[in-house]
Amino acid sequence: MPDIYQELNRLAESDMYPLHMPGHKRNLQSTPLQGAFRCDITEIDDFDNLHDEKGIILEAEQRANALYGADYTYFLVNGSTSGVLSAVSAALQEGGAILAARGSHRSFYHAAYLRRLEIEYLKAKMIQPYGIFDGYTAEDVERALDNSKRNIKAVFITSPTYEGRCSDVAGIAAVCHKRGIPLIVDEAHGSHFGLGEGVPQGAVQQGADLVIHSLHKTLPAMTQTALIHLQGDLVDKAVLKRFLGIYQSSSPSYILMSSIDLCINQMQEEGHEYIRRLTQYRELIQTEAQNLKHIRVPGRDELEDPAKVLVYVDPAAMTGQQLYDILREEYHLQLEMAGEKYALAIITGSDREEGIKRLSAALKEIDASLEAREPAQTQPTPHYDFSAKEIPQEALPLWRAWDEEKETVPLKQAAGRIAAGFVNLYPPGIPLIVPGEMITEDLIEDILRYLSLNLNVQGILNGEIRGNKGIIEDKERGIICVKQK
Amino acid sequence: MPDIYQELNRLAESDMYPLHMPGHKRNLQSTPLQGAFRCDITEIDDFDNLHDEKGIILEAEQRANALYGADYTYFLVNGSTSGVLSAVSAALQEGGAILAARGSHRSFYHAAYLRRLEIEYLKAKMIQPYGIFDGYTAEDVERALDNSKRNIKAVFITSPTYEGRCSDVAGIAAVCHKRGIPLIVDEAHGSHFGLGEGVPQGAVQQGADLVIHSLHKTLPAMTQTALIHLQGDLVDKAVLKRFLGIYQSSSPSYILMSSIDLCINQMQEEGHEYIRRLTQYRELIQTEAQNLKHIRVPGRDELEDPAKVLVYVDPAAMTGQQLYDILREEYHLQLEMAGEKYALAIITGSDREEGIKRLSAALKEIDASLEAREPAQTQPTPHYDFSAKEIPQEALPLWRAWDEEKETVPLKQAAGRIAAGFVNLYPPGIPLIVPGEMITEDLIEDILRYLSLNLNVQGILNGEIRGNKGIIEDKERGIICVKQK
Repeated sequence: MPDIYQELNRLAESDMYPLHMPGHKRNLQSTPLQGAFRCDITEIDDFDNLHDEKGIILEAEQRANALYGADYTYFLVNGSTSGVLSAVSAALQEGGAILAARGSHRSFYHAAYLRRLEIEYLKAKMIQPYGIFDGYTAEDVERALDNSKRNIKAVFITSPTYEGRCSDVAGIAAVCHKRGIPLIVDEAHGSHFGLGEGVPQGAVQQGADLVIHSLHKTLPAMTQTALIHLQGDLVDKAVLKRFLGIYQSSSPSYILMSSIDLCINQMQEEGHEYIRRLTQYRELIQTEAQNLKHIRVPGRDELEDPAKVLVYVDPAAMTGQQLYDILREEYHLQLEMAGEKYALAIITGSDREEGIKRLSAALKEIDASLEAREPAQTQPTPHYDFSAKEIPQEALPLWRAWDEEKETVPLKQAAGRIAAGFVNLYPPGIPLIVPGEMITEDLIEDILRYLSLNLNVQGILNGEIRGNKGIIEDKERGIICVKQK
Repeated sequence: MPDIYQELNRLAESDMYPLHMPGHKRNLQSTPLQGAFRCDITEIDDFDNLHDEKGIILEAEQRANALYGADYTYFLVNGSTSGVLSAVSAALQEGGAILAARGSHRSFYHAAYLRRLEIEYLKAKMIQPYGIFDGYTAEDVERALDNSKRNIKAVFITSPTYEGRCSDVAGIAAVCHKRGIPLIVDEAHGSHFGLGEGVPQGAVQQGADLVIHSLHKTLPAMTQTALIHLQGDLVDKAVLKRFLGIYQSSSPSYILMSSIDLCINQMQEEGHEYIRRLTQYRELIQTEAQNLKHIRVPGRDELEDPAKVLVYVDPAAMTGQQLYDILREEYHLQLEMAGEKYALAIITGSDREEGIKRLSAALKEIDASLEAREPAQTQPTPHYDFSAKEIPQEALPLWRAWDEEKETVPLKQAAGRIAAGFVNLYPPGIPLIVPGEMITEDLIEDILRYLSLNLNVQGILNGEIRGNKGIIEDKERGIICVKQK
């Protein structure tokens, strides 16, 4: 059972001459990408077709399926984005209602837009003092389903979160199945789950109907590679496959597919060892961090995923961004992201012990220096708690509002208007407002506060940003609204 | 102005340790893909963001833009598929009417489905005896616009075709602009156009509003890489950018983006030389082929694109598939595809003279052997002429029919039913029927004839193909229809 990479290699070493795409003809000599170009082909004889797989791609997908244990597994070359778009599109009819966490990835909102879905929200739950999303319990979902006036046809949750917090997928799946509706789990950050000792069980094992895995996030696969898993009979395989064919290139990259296959094979061979290295690295960091005074790394009892190292720093001492910048500039440690009060590192079984030790040593040094350091220049920020905030009222459905004629309104004059664009806050990655929702004075105040704290607010315009159809002349902050007629 | 690849290389050689995605940590030692993994990162500091580009990706897009000369150029990592989806979605309102060639790529139909478009068709024009698509003239498009009862808001054409035939893009653009509607050109097969002497002018230069380029097809870039160009003010840049963000991964591959940039830089430096090599190779083949008796390679007067070498073979001697198979099995020359009466080779400036000479020599040998050879086992097939066929009547819009409840009906009993799936014939790559259209006795006869000739008909079911929701028990050929209530 040769894998895709072996087959590509065999072809590269044969005397078969390529009179077909791709145009580079595997004939590039002068770049380290050469090894990749060498394996980059199109759907020629014997190399199967991702969109109608019957040969080596089907076999590779079956190997991936055997690793995770769903009914069907498909390779994704357009990232988890294409998996979420396809899952949401396939799980319910156009125009149907879906229950989803407000902090869902933007691809969820894009699917809802394309398929004209009604969205019932699971309000954000936050873990303090970190200001990150909590997972959901079965009761959270059951209550939301009970209280909704909509006829909800599917549930969409993200577990683990970016920061490594898990929902009760098994319990939520049971709640969904009791009502005969499918559960979609965006497990983009948890493709390593279930592959060894000391990581949580995966969503497939817990009974979710559709599960999306970003392989590249925590496993040794290339960026933009992902998997989607299907089980049970609540979602039609043919419909899912149709949408996978819509949202993904008809010329899928064999480099990406080969990378998926190499990753799966490595996990089959040494997945347990890979996870063992990960958990060992994590323990090393945890042990080294336990006596720090101003810095804290929450343990696995708080954030279940060992791959996510959240480094919380006393807000009186410095901000998350400052910690992130010091690690990068002074210690040459590039972290994944900075939150208001923390910096987030991702570790995997592909890390080298050297890197882990450098992180631990850096945290010790920074912690020790904090006594002597000046207090942070920015004020400790009032923490924003999305579990306490009302979700704005919907005036128009998302799909209608996002397509409406738009105009940019100065932010301070926008109360009472209907939003026609998303305004998002990163982290934690939540829409403050969704197209179709009413803008309130409270929301405007919140946005202005986030902006004054230099937080990453996306979707607020400042000056000449409208593009080729017109420019706002004043430099006031603006928000995109449905045009008033 | 360092390019993306130089920056990735600089990072790989630095002591910056990755505590972020991707999970492989650029730490793979044992595969020739190693050179690629080494350059595979995510959106860390200084590496910009494809979906909100302001740094090295913006600069790279500007270099690509300078090469082709549009107003704006964007990188695509989900192939021309994502470019066509985005262009069609952005060019007209949801529910609008678009004029499009019946033989358009399936991504066009997918966009029409997602955006609930009405489609007015440009009937296929065929070039005989090859049985391939012809291009369109300005008059073709003007007549179709004049005759349509719909209020057409955009035009979509493919030029060049797969086999290298061009439409009068400049004339068609003028017809569109006279009516104030945008022209979208799927120039997936023509990204080398305009880059040197002896290739046709590109669609951007000819005034199309939106142009999609599959870089990988004829230029030295990796599979799944593409560009989209925008010019003029008939399409809103912000709306286009919105859809590019919907249809493409939020974790775009830096390997793919770097490959685009390397390709553009190579074309800036030696594009003319690259095209010169291509045209020289083409002349070599043309010269060698001119005295063949049973095989003919149509010249540039018939098929304008030098990259497409259509090898027509006398149907009394053998089929296109037989020619393709002999070239592959006996000569180890892998061609792009086989048609009924031809095999198609793609050549580029990345070819080696050795390959071109092997192709020429093989054609000579095969031609010489044909005198002695037994006549082909398959009968010369009655050629199918789509310019003479009526397009089936629409009973339901595509977007409604494709979402309807479906059932599989034995093909021979399907006359009078409404199709709920596509049935396509490759080559030439045309839908015989589109969801929502009425199935007729004539269509069924056609399909049965194509099947009996072993042509590649997709969308006709044979036995257990329905997936996890049910299986057809008999092994009769079936077609997917809207379920009768």
